[in-house]
Amino acid sequence: MINKPSIPKGTRDFSPQTMRKRNYVFEILKKKFELFGFVQIETPSFENLNTLIGKYGDEGDKLIFKILSSGDFLSKVKLNPSTTSKSIISDISNKALRYDLTIPFARYISQHRNDIIFPFRRFQMQNVWRADKPQKGRFREFYQCDADIVGTNSLLAEIELIQLYDEVFSTLGFKNISININNRKILSGIAQIVGVGDKINDFLVSLDKLEKIGISNFKDDLRKKGFASEAINKINLLLDLKTSNSIILTRLNDLFKDSEIGLEGIEELKQIVSKIDGLQLKCASLEIDITLARGLDYYTGSIFEVKTNDFNIGSIGGGGRYDNLTGIFGFENISGVGISFGFDRICMALESLNLYPELSAKTCQVLIVNFGEFEENYCLNLLKKLRAEGISSLMYPGSAKLKKQMQYADKNHIEFVIIVGQNEIKTNTITVKKMSDGSQQNMSFEKLLKFLK
Amino acid sequence: MINKPSIPKGTRDFSPQTMRKRNYVFEILKKKFELFGFVQIETPSFENLNTLIGKYGDEGDKLIFKILSSGDFLSKVKLNPSTTSKSIISDISNKALRYDLTIPFARYISQHRNDIIFPFRRFQMQNVWRADKPQKGRFREFYQCDADIVGTNSLLAEIELIQLYDEVFSTLGFKNISININNRKILSGIAQIVGVGDKINDFLVSLDKLEKIGISNFKDDLRKKGFASEAINKINLLLDLKTSNSIILTRLNDLFKDSEIGLEGIEELKQIVSKIDGLQLKCASLEIDITLARGLDYYTGSIFEVKTNDFNIGSIGGGGRYDNLTGIFGFENISGVGISFGFDRICMALESLNLYPELSAKTCQVLIVNFGEFEENYCLNLLKKLRAEGISSLMYPGSAKLKKQMQYADKNHIEFVIIVGQNEIKTNTITVKKMSDGSQQNMSFEKLLKFLK
Repeated sequence: MINKPSIPKGTRDFSPQTMRKRNYVFEILKKKFELFGFVQIETPSFENLNTLIGKYGDEGDKLIFKILSSGDFLSKVKLNPSTTSKSIISDISNKALRYDLTIPFARYISQHRNDIIFPFRRFQMQNVWRADKPQKGRFREFYQCDADIVGTNSLLAEIELIQLYDEVFSTLGFKNISININNRKILSGIAQIVGVGDKINDFLVSLDKLEKIGISNFKDDLRKKGFASEAINKINLLLDLKTSNSIILTRLNDLFKDSEIGLEGIEELKQIVSKIDGLQLKCASLEIDITLARGLDYYTGSIFEVKTNDFNIGSIGGGGRYDNLTGIFGFENISGVGISFGFDRICMALESLNLYPELSAKTCQVLIVNFGEFEENYCLNLLKKLRAEGISSLMYPGSAKLKKQMQYADKNHIEFVIIVGQNEIKTNTITVKKMSDGSQQNMSFEKLLKFLK
Repeated sequence: MINKPSIPKGTRDFSPQTMRKRNYVFEILKKKFELFGFVQIETPSFENLNTLIGKYGDEGDKLIFKILSSGDFLSKVKLNPSTTSKSIISDISNKALRYDLTIPFARYISQHRNDIIFPFRRFQMQNVWRADKPQKGRFREFYQCDADIVGTNSLLAEIELIQLYDEVFSTLGFKNISININNRKILSGIAQIVGVGDKINDFLVSLDKLEKIGISNFKDDLRKKGFASEAINKINLLLDLKTSNSIILTRLNDLFKDSEIGLEGIEELKQIVSKIDGLQLKCASLEIDITLARGLDYYTGSIFEVKTNDFNIGSIGGGGRYDNLTGIFGFENISGVGISFGFDRICMALESLNLYPELSAKTCQVLIVNFGEFEENYCLNLLKKLRAEGISSLMYPGSAKLKKQMQYADKNHIEFVIIVGQNEIKTNTITVKKMSDGSQQNMSFEKLLKFLK
């Protein structure tokens, strides 16, 4: 049976050309993580199902890819007419693909708590998988690159991560980055003030969609969820607050005179904003956005979201502080802050904004022409010597026509072609052709080495 | 609900210490692939189920991890008493995790054939997953690092890959590597001679296990499969042949006077052995092993298997030539050769043989002590300046006791601790402590930079 070759929707093949670009971004991220004192870990691609389920809200649960148990997975299952996908799932699957890097990290630090020196600064760069509907900038398999500082309440952690964003994005050549910041405590304060304190999660889910759906749909959404009109009207307060950081902070201060948690949130935000002001970011501006909610349940303090204002691709980063993420794994009261870099969207933005440096397209530096059995044997030693000098080289496999071999060098952006025929063998020399200008020279091997370096 | 943190069997977490070692091996592989003119691609972690099923034999099919379709996967399934795991599988799953890198690569070149310049030399370093029973050196998630040369019949491809093995393993410090080589054509020749020509695949599956199960069990196995005693006795011919390459080749030549395919196999093997002899490998010896079968159906010519003779971990590499691997994807007659490096086993061997170089355990170079709010603000700028000079640094988050901060530096193998208290701020100086000998010096920032570099 012949299969027409294709790949699952939402996934991608990466060609050598694309890999060069991805590796370029990858290397910068890694270098900057290390500059900031983060160390790398990796966790398995799949986790036990119960490690992941219930951690990302109901919507998240649906998007987790579950792995079918191997072998005769139905052998212990009683099928009957009332069997549903939901009722059978834990019988036929006990593993699932990583949905993000945060929950596996929380599992990691809980599991290895005795081997970890806290505060722990870790970075992790691995694939995650989501059964989301694929669309522009949204894939079913994509890279996340996370940095977290765990085991400290200090707001210095937030300061560090904001600077890390700035350092990475400025190094990549971005000019106009917005780091939106909010604080879950401020959202709790607002929920108190507008009287939705007991439905805070419903409120946040709607708020999270505000920018996408607009104010009027947002209000409809709340109405459908049973919020009182009075409460919904008070929410207008929120929507007036898109102005400078200092004005927002002042207004919130007035608003929160009766909300202790709200005041706490303002205090944290104030400190972060003021310290970052003193440090002068290179390409990013830190902007308070009190409509920023971020959907994930586990955030308890600062929350971030990063956008480039030069390209419309949605968020290219995000994160926040969680006070008890590891509690679900029995390791209580470990506060941490983490941020994520949206690797694939960053790559798309770099492409679109033409920010990639000129990355060499060459597959290697030297091609040795193959004239047939005799010359091939002679040139095998030459090839070996070139590589011993660190010069990336190959010999054309088999004795194709010279023209074809030259085309091969050309299409592969190989810089030099080495020609060793009967004459060269007799005179113990090498003819080298520089592909960029077609010039050709005959020389000794020793001279060749200098010529190539 | 509290989950006791754990991971699925056969998978692993990698700590920062382990990641350093893995990255070391990873970098060497990548560098050597590039030195030999290979370019990198990546393919998705999961493929369409029908891309993978049927490519690895029945045993392989069972070991493929299938992914449950997302959403209400039972909605279109009619359950009845005769429903079995096998009958339902294609209804509830249409994707599966990569089992190796070869079939996805065959799918890749078939799908992108118009964008690829042949002969194509690609490398790929990604995870693969197998629902195998975990044991020493066998995981359910592990790295494969593959190099393939596709689109040529030239035996130069084999020569290149043997040299690549030698280059990688010698760079890693291995001293005593065996590259076992055989040729499927020789196996076909033997099958002809001993009269099992029509049951060649059954024969190969048994032969593949010979080394593990011993001669007597091997013969039993063949008997059970219905091979005639006469044929089985002729197989003794095989087992006498573990001697020098040249003697093996001579004996095979005699044996194969009536087997055209056998003679073809000898001719290929001869050429490869003689060219490699002329090149002098650094740490590996190329050894003909005519009992080497390798289980995979798709090999048609040379086959390889690599072992280190200094550590018993099974094969640390393997591969072979396939003449029509892409035919299953409708792209006919593209011959290629590929090898795989067993990354995880290589790491285990390096560990056990003590071959890792001394990899720095430091998380970063500098820790700035945090004495509290005032000093923290002052030092934020210092931290920024150090990083701008490329010096990996961090400040302790929050003002813990000095002793605790020093311990933190010590445990994290941080080289220098910078102390900036009231005195240093007044005098615009920095006190730096070298952790290795405890010595302390007071100096200007400019001097510090020189001191640290």
